[in-house]
Amino acid sequence: MEPVRKPLVADDDDFQSGYSYPRTSRMNGLLVLLGVVEALGVAAIAMVCYWTAHYRGGFAWDGSGQQFNWHPVLMVVGLVFLYGNGILTYRVFRDQVKFGVKVLHAVLQVTALIFAIVALVATFDFHNANGIANMYSLHSWVGLTVVILFALQWVLGLSTYMLPFASRWIRTLFMPYHRFLGLAIFALAIAACLTGLTEKLLFSIADTYSKFAPEGILVNCLGLTLVLFGVFVGFIATKEEWKRQPLPEEQPINMSIE
Amino acid sequence: MEPVRKPLVADDDDFQSGYSYPRTSRMNGLLVLLGVVEALGVAAIAMVCYWTAHYRGGFAWDGSGQQFNWHPVLMVVGLVFLYGNGILTYRVFRDQVKFGVKVLHAVLQVTALIFAIVALVATFDFHNANGIANMYSLHSWVGLTVVILFALQWVLGLSTYMLPFASRWIRTLFMPYHRFLGLAIFALAIAACLTGLTEKLLFSIADTYSKFAPEGILVNCLGLTLVLFGVFVGFIATKEEWKRQPLPEEQPINMSIE
Repeated sequence: MEPVRKPLVADDDDFQSGYSYPRTSRMNGLLVLLGVVEALGVAAIAMVCYWTAHYRGGFAWDGSGQQFNWHPVLMVVGLVFLYGNGILTYRVFRDQVKFGVKVLHAVLQVTALIFAIVALVATFDFHNANGIANMYSLHSWVGLTVVILFALQWVLGLSTYMLPFASRWIRTLFMPYHRFLGLAIFALAIAACLTGLTEKLLFSIADTYSKFAPEGILVNCLGLTLVLFGVFVGFIATKEEWKRQPLPEEQPINMSIE
Repeated sequence: MEPVRKPLVADDDDFQSGYSYPRTSRMNGLLVLLGVVEALGVAAIAMVCYWTAHYRGGFAWDGSGQQFNWHPVLMVVGLVFLYGNGILTYRVFRDQVKFGVKVLHAVLQVTALIFAIVALVATFDFHNANGIANMYSLHSWVGLTVVILFALQWVLGLSTYMLPFASRWIRTLFMPYHRFLGLAIFALAIAACLTGLTEKLLFSIADTYSKFAPEGILVNCLGLTLVLFGVFVGFIATKEEWKRQPLPEEQPINMSIE
């Protein structure tokens, strides 16, 4: 027997299949910008891979500069691309059931954290194997701050929104801080990338950087691409009318109907 | 003859002298954070001045490294401190007449722009006098982008909100973009500072930076102070309940009372 289908209030075309969440023309702008964001993110990953593979000798895990190369690649994939996409889950899957989106958000962010930790290990190993000092540069200070704050934010987010302990009042109270800190740490992650790229170029191609060596131009373009990715993620995440609204079945039930 | 004083609805102590704008306990948090922001801003200016004066030989305008020293000082004062304070004018002077606050906002931002332009001239002069290439580094690309975007944002803001041409509809439509771009360019200005500090340390003290030279630690602390200043400015500017509300006399008049 087929399930009973309730008549819809509006025309069928206004609704997405399976969900009664309206598709308005305002959402077309969101779809376009999401496309731009993903294109920028993929471009950044391609550029950091080409840079490290072609100009910096590729990848290994043996304490050499090839091990260091994992650092920029994993940071761009983790603390920029995955982090940015994690921020956007509630915009991309705005018409899906909330719990599923929440799980995806948490999984993307913990994956980003794992990438970041492996990226840190790659650098510390490389430094230690080559007698290079750790944690003296502004990049290392800003970068480690980002990873620690990101980990704290993830644990706080998990314990407030995923575990069943926090009351509805606490969840609502903490949400603006979770949102603001998430975006602030994301911006700081991109700033850390820019200092890291600057450092690496001055260590590697100090002589030819000022002569506009192709490697320098490539890495400068990578830096600007990371900035653009961050700006678009921030724009989409903060635009009021693109915020996820509760689905009809998530609305509080008015008991007076009974 | 004394002007007639209307009786106030609430107790006199709830209102600031001359304005009937309520002082709520929620605003105490704003005052505390404004104090923190100003302390961080003054600390950053003190640190950049001490760095350039004590470690980098002080100031001159003769094409030497002493001319270059104006660059970090003017950028921190202009594109960080004045820019950040310009963003906060509507929070600091939330109970003042709107037009006055708007003029102060525009004046602070154009002063920041002038500081930034002089800072750029200082660097280009220094480069040209010493045969150093211009505009090859990621810092220069990000930094010049910031100054150009900041100038565009200022001109757009002036023509939309200060000059009488734009309709109320345009002003309302453009406001979220003005706000978002203002904060995004501000964040990028701080990121540009971090790349600039990184660059300058690797040019000047490459040998001792990795041995935790005091100059390196000072400049790292300056970088973190700039980040903290930016985070607090962003927090205050985006916190919903601290947004400036229209004064009673700015409320639209309900003609039906007549």
